[in-house]
Amino acid sequence: MRVESKLADLEIELPETPHPMANYVPAVTTGNLVFISGHGPTRPGGTFITGKVGRDLTIEEGYEAARVTMLNCLSTLKAEIGDLDRVRRIVKLFGMVNCTEEFTEPPAVINGASDLLVAIFGDAGRHARSAVGMHALPRSIAVEIEMVVEIA
Amino acid sequence: MRVESKLADLEIELPETPHPMANYVPAVTTGNLVFISGHGPTRPGGTFITGKVGRDLTIEEGYEAARVTMLNCLSTLKAEIGDLDRVRRIVKLFGMVNCTEEFTEPPAVINGASDLLVAIFGDAGRHARSAVGMHALPRSIAVEIEMVVEIA
Amino acid sequence: MRVESKLADLEIELPETPHPMANYVPAVTTGNLVFISGHGPTRPGGTFITGKVGRDLTIEEGYEAARVTMLNCLSTLKAEIGDLDRVRRIVKLFGMVNCTEEFTEPPAVINGASDLLVAIFGDAGRHARSAVGMHALPRSIAVEIEMVVEIA
Repeated sequence: MRVESKLADLEIELPETPHPMANYVPAVTTGNLVFISGHGPTRPGGTFITGKVGRDLTIEEGYEAARVTMLNCLSTLKAEIGDLDRVRRIVKLFGMVNCTEEFTEPPAVINGASDLLVAIFGDAGRHARSAVGMHALPRSIAVEIEMVVEIA
Repeated sequence: MRVESKLADLEIELPETPHPMANYVPAVTTGNLVFISGHGPTRPGGTFITGKVGRDLTIEEGYEAARVTMLNCLSTLKAEIGDLDRVRRIVKLFGMVNCTEEFTEPPAVINGASDLLVAIFGDAGRHARSAVGMHALPRSIAVEIEMVVEIA
Repeated sequence: MRVESKLADLEIELPETPHPMANYVPAVTTGNLVFISGHGPTRPGGTFITGKVGRDLTIEEGYEAARVTMLNCLSTLKAEIGDLDRVRRIVKLFGMVNCTEEFTEPPAVINGASDLLVAIFGDAGRHARSAVGMHALPRSIAVEIEMVVEIA
């Protein structure tokens, strides 16, 4: 339980596994790859962090939304694979930031997710990614992230 | 021909395999994964369902566009793998909705594709996905979907 | 060194391997798939091609930005796998064009990347893809592309 004790060191408690908004599943495993559905910044209690970065939220608030989003992704990942020590590599993130057309810093926002992954998984958490600005996300959530994970 | 008879039960006829808009191919198979290019809601005859959901189209019309888009994806999939019974799992959808900035229901639109997959493939059709709102899609199509499929 | 000599024939010199903008890595290999992070049109010297196609850039300028972006992707790919002759197939591109809401030709822009891949790799360069219009990209870059490559 190496990852679990790392989570405890970092005083991170994973949230309840979020429920999909519609007719799909939170994750699908094919071979040793897990595809995680797009997740949003659901807070404990079930409300979302909403709004556009650059208008309703600062970069720092967006960063926090990306961190919360990743906690939800990891909760789903744990439910899918049973034990986070099975993670061999975080392969790829697609990070989407709900933002104004003028906003040029989606990478600084998605770092909220990336920094968390590296803090928890170390080198195995270092991933490929894209971080881009979106026009409209479901229910006006501030951030949505999907990812691909390699497991043992 | 289990899937074909299911299609007949549902009175679904797959459209002609759509032609890519540019210098790419409709699908690439690597190992037992098939990557399907972004497809749009091409109608029989070759016209597209166009416009922005939330302005030019209702959610219901967007849902229908997503369903038509998935029929096109499945036509491409069948051309790629020969027999839809080889589908072991629909792994992942990335569903993009051409919509206004205020539109918050991309998931309700992309359900038009997801519901069809579950109707045809049952549990093997239950997939991971993201459903997001886009600024501008090729030729103003209302919906674009790309997907990853695991085959036997 | 088949690909290298093709590059020489085409008088193409790959740029310096670009540095990620934030806390991620340019590429991750899992099994025989390489996931390449979103890259932008970094020019030799480190400046970017920026702006919105349909307002600040013509389609032709966007096409050139997509070509430059792909050169950067290939530089990263070469750094990741050592020798471009290991490429068995370019599997999938996700091509994002920073554009106005009215712009309907993202495919014509992303062809700048697709045409280059086919010129260099021949049939192995023929890929699945999506080409879509984006609201906001990091640092206002004109094009961002991520890709999946199968290697031997």
